[in-house]
Amino acid sequence: MRFLCEREDLFTALQTVSRAVAQRSPNPMYENVFLQAWAGGVRLAGTDQSLGIEALIPGTVQEEGSVLLPGRLFPEIVRKLPEGEVSVEVSDRFTATIRMPKIKTTLQGMDASLYPSLPAVDDGEEVHISQNLLKDMIRQTGFAIAQDATRPILTGCLFEVSGEQATMVALDGFRLALRRGQLAAPCEGSISCVVSGRYWAEIGRILSDSDDEVALRLGEKHVSMEKDGCKIVVSRMDGEYIKYRQLLPAQYQTSVLLDRAALSESIDRASLMAKEGRNNLLKFSIKGDSLSISSNSEMGDVFEQIDAVTQGQDIDISFNVNYITDAIRSLAEEKVLFRFNTSISPAVIVPEEGDSFLYLVLPVRTFQGV
Amino acid sequence: MRFLCEREDLFTALQTVSRAVAQRSPNPMYENVFLQAWAGGVRLAGTDQSLGIEALIPGTVQEEGSVLLPGRLFPEIVRKLPEGEVSVEVSDRFTATIRMPKIKTTLQGMDASLYPSLPAVDDGEEVHISQNLLKDMIRQTGFAIAQDATRPILTGCLFEVSGEQATMVALDGFRLALRRGQLAAPCEGSISCVVSGRYWAEIGRILSDSDDEVALRLGEKHVSMEKDGCKIVVSRMDGEYIKYRQLLPAQYQTSVLLDRAALSESIDRASLMAKEGRNNLLKFSIKGDSLSISSNSEMGDVFEQIDAVTQGQDIDISFNVNYITDAIRSLAEEKVLFRFNTSISPAVIVPEEGDSFLYLVLPVRTFQGV
Repeated sequence: MRFLCEREDLFTALQTVSRAVAQRSPNPMYENVFLQAWAGGVRLAGTDQSLGIEALIPGTVQEEGSVLLPGRLFPEIVRKLPEGEVSVEVSDRFTATIRMPKIKTTLQGMDASLYPSLPAVDDGEEVHISQNLLKDMIRQTGFAIAQDATRPILTGCLFEVSGEQATMVALDGFRLALRRGQLAAPCEGSISCVVSGRYWAEIGRILSDSDDEVALRLGEKHVSMEKDGCKIVVSRMDGEYIKYRQLLPAQYQTSVLLDRAALSESIDRASLMAKEGRNNLLKFSIKGDSLSISSNSEMGDVFEQIDAVTQGQDIDISFNVNYITDAIRSLAEEKVLFRFNTSISPAVIVPEEGDSFLYLVLPVRTFQGV
Repeated sequence: MRFLCEREDLFTALQTVSRAVAQRSPNPMYENVFLQAWAGGVRLAGTDQSLGIEALIPGTVQEEGSVLLPGRLFPEIVRKLPEGEVSVEVSDRFTATIRMPKIKTTLQGMDASLYPSLPAVDDGEEVHISQNLLKDMIRQTGFAIAQDATRPILTGCLFEVSGEQATMVALDGFRLALRRGQLAAPCEGSISCVVSGRYWAEIGRILSDSDDEVALRLGEKHVSMEKDGCKIVVSRMDGEYIKYRQLLPAQYQTSVLLDRAALSESIDRASLMAKEGRNNLLKFSIKGDSLSISSNSEMGDVFEQIDAVTQGQDIDISFNVNYITDAIRSLAEEKVLFRFNTSISPAVIVPEEGDSFLYLVLPVRTFQGV
């Protein structure tokens, strides 16, 4: 195997595919990057068996072949090379020689003949969606997946498609994040799938900051996406997702319209003190046209007031700091609406207008709050 | 105690003094920032007993007094405040209330009456030196101090002054870094002192990027420096420093003039492979007008060639990767001179011209190298 390619192309492709390379695997083969030179160019791939990423780059192939090279060291070596043309040559004993003028690196590889191809996803439905929208859906829900695997399905995000509308949902036992948007082209009927939050994040990483659409193929076992010579295939999760619709409150007793930046800064300051304490709590108190946020610990306390436009009843309610900061950070809107029923029922955070985003969070019951 | 000041001034001063606050101390008093309001303004201080930093900021003092406030949390609170005027008020029970419009934080403090003043350094000699030069001296030697305290004096840097010349030296058992420069005003006679490398780094942090001179006072027990309302006092180390002059080779068999950037990049690439191996070695081989650098591990090997202007005999010599990268990184010159005697005697790295910097490093004996 022997080919020439640009260092820049090789490095970009390695950065992409190495995200799918297993850090540690019972089968050391999966700790490698797959490298193949054939008539069509140079193909790189990585997989940990549930996540696979493949990238094609232009190259001058002088001899076809394939090899597995160390998944951590090979990209590091290429990262440190200067710009220009790189030659890669692999011997019969799987030793790769990477050459540039005055620089020669040899790297011991492995036989690639047992390395699996990415699963072909040729069944199922194709969903066309704007890259920016899909990125936002992933970013604005992914933080709410369960961190432990007590209920494995909750480490995934549900992706639902119905007609022109797509919805992504993540929830753990304490909060739920939901993002809706319009597809680039309507789908027939309704489809849904659950994919690990970690894999959605990898799909998000491959997307560009662009409104150009991309096609997600939702197969029976896998979800795949292709973009600019790069292909990602991820396993779907088995099992039924929580029927999340019944968790969403139908009405609210209190609504508070807030400046997101002001809210974010106040929460940031109040969090500092909350995190010193054991309870990690933020207390929200709505009285008339004012919202106050307070926190305390043995070290002291913080009291913040924020201008707000309120509707409905006064309320005192407490939340875990982290559940609130995650949601506020994921929003870009100038104004947000905080909506409550009682101090022991779920509250929601939504944009001032539209229903593109909803964050639901359970309050923490406190002696003061009840 | 009660005063008003600008959040910006308070934060900048806290950032500076909190570097001297002990992270953990048998006496919890030293884990606090000292805060004092008096007719002259507002004074902040931190000390871990060997290092002390004090800063003065302008403020409107409404009631004099002093307090100790938590050394980690107090700066964090002030960091997150918006710009503008802050009011700080301390009760008789040492509770500080920090107020800005709509923001109120209380913070439990401690009695400051037992907090020590910074030692007055009124004995000894005053040395006037450019801030840029002193910064460079600290930066270009500090990395070479001993990391363990087997010989405590080697965790310090020696500062020597003689007439118009200042020299700073650091060494562990394997390498030595030396930086020389001209004082802003000549000193009478010769003086020297040893101060912990960590404390020199703190002095360096207070210096500006400026050729304006600063005065270092070398007292019997302490070294102090004042700058823009900020004062730092550090303990001198006891004991005799190594007689380093006798370590410097008087002549060299081989000299190699190299482009520093090219050398640095080659070493960077070769290091990657060396660090995979157990020996962590870079092999330098000078043959005619060429320097090659190589490294190897079980994973493969790297071979780099660099254009060089060589003088003297060919030589093969090996070094610990870290000892070489530290020195190359600390240099800013375009060209550096690498000088050798035998493959088992110390080598030096110096600038192409002048004697402002010298780095001496012991080679590693290898079977190939002997």
